[in-house]
Amino acid sequence: MAKKPYRPHHPRSRHASPASGPGYWLYGLHAAEAALANPRRIIHEILLTHEAQDALAAKRIALPQAPHIVERIRLDQLCERDAVHQGIALRTEPLEPLTIDDALLRPGPILVLDQVTDPRNIGAILRSAAAFGAAALLLQDRNTPQESGALAKAASGALDSIPMLREVNLSRALSALQNAGLWVVGLDAGGTTLNGQSFKGRRVALVLGAEGAGLRRLTRESCDEIASVHMPGDMESLNVSNAAAVALYELVRPA
Amino acid sequence: MAKKPYRPHHPRSRHASPASGPGYWLYGLHAAEAALANPRRIIHEILLTHEAQDALAAKRIALPQAPHIVERIRLDQLCERDAVHQGIALRTEPLEPLTIDDALLRPGPILVLDQVTDPRNIGAILRSAAAFGAAALLLQDRNTPQESGALAKAASGALDSIPMLREVNLSRALSALQNAGLWVVGLDAGGTTLNGQSFKGRRVALVLGAEGAGLRRLTRESCDEIASVHMPGDMESLNVSNAAAVALYELVRPA
Repeated sequence: MAKKPYRPHHPRSRHASPASGPGYWLYGLHAAEAALANPRRIIHEILLTHEAQDALAAKRIALPQAPHIVERIRLDQLCERDAVHQGIALRTEPLEPLTIDDALLRPGPILVLDQVTDPRNIGAILRSAAAFGAAALLLQDRNTPQESGALAKAASGALDSIPMLREVNLSRALSALQNAGLWVVGLDAGGTTLNGQSFKGRRVALVLGAEGAGLRRLTRESCDEIASVHMPGDMESLNVSNAAAVALYELVRPA
Repeated sequence: MAKKPYRPHHPRSRHASPASGPGYWLYGLHAAEAALANPRRIIHEILLTHEAQDALAAKRIALPQAPHIVERIRLDQLCERDAVHQGIALRTEPLEPLTIDDALLRPGPILVLDQVTDPRNIGAILRSAAAFGAAALLLQDRNTPQESGALAKAASGALDSIPMLREVNLSRALSALQNAGLWVVGLDAGGTTLNGQSFKGRRVALVLGAEGAGLRRLTRESCDEIASVHMPGDMESLNVSNAAAVALYELVRPA
């Protein structure tokens, strides 16, 4: 594709210097593709390298506005340190969180995180939630990071397909799920071995705590059942995103 | 514990400024505990904050040499950026890699990584390997990062319990495993659904490729079987450490 000359009369000239403003930079091909396909996503501006522009064109991905074509270095500067932006970054607003009622309209288990704070872990958990058909990810508002480039990149597009719900009071949210007929399973030591077959016919909410600390007392007491993943080896616990993936898999695997 | 005054006559005075030298800084409580307990681990020096010293003493963890007591900021400087060092860092040598024959003396499946390069992912995979009773982690030497603080931290101690084997030629290593009677399963699209029960009585080597690219052609052709994790949802793939955790779980889960 030939480079076009600078055209000052164009309202969104492709070679103009991008403006800064509200929102955050979401980057990476999968994450950006999913954001562009999400009608709920507000996008302020689109920055692309020539290579990424060609990649999007080859995949026939339509852009809602003219992109700014930039050098790779410009994206290195805008995105987080060591970000693998793959030549694309969108300045975007965090999505409006859905309510529990909205989420319950979707099929699948609900995943709940208590005090998980690492954006990469939350992103990887969203990706697993999408892979295993979870309905939503419910988080405690106060101790959870906001949407960010690192979170969106780790989610690999799932940020725009799995609703994230942010609740002020996690115990109250678990009660609401129980009132809606869900069986709330806390993933923690001291209970049974997690067995997906035992929940047949029941919809499950799966609660995971922070690494090390595990579930907080009040969260644990709000669960209908405490269970842990079968681990025959010599290690107390998994990385929280790995624990979420394995537990979700156990819920949906074929008998 | 009262602070002791500076004693210049002590060969390893606890308040002396730590020397720099060969090796790398391994940090974090679980990682350091496992390193201290590993007779194969060469440790050049031990740096602790007062808090970490108290934590080790409370757990009755013996140190092979007198530690240097330092301020937290000193560890912030020595360890990688944003490292959660928890007040402890050891300057240590990478472990001598074992051979395939050594690894086969241990029970459990063998995990093989083809072109996985992120130290945090490799560390998390080691942790899952320990949790699910894998025998060893086999890697291609050329494209795999060396042991590092970030890798050891993510492994949460498993770096010192799960042997990492580094092989020059991965296809040849897979042949060696096959000759030793293992069934080599490549985790990739286009095959069967991974079913742990179907391998009963056979020892499995599980091969995972880089995210996005998947297995290289030669690696894929070296496998006895290609299989993928059952994923009913709307996502093509998992994070590689999550894929490793779920696949290992499928191999060892109760029927």
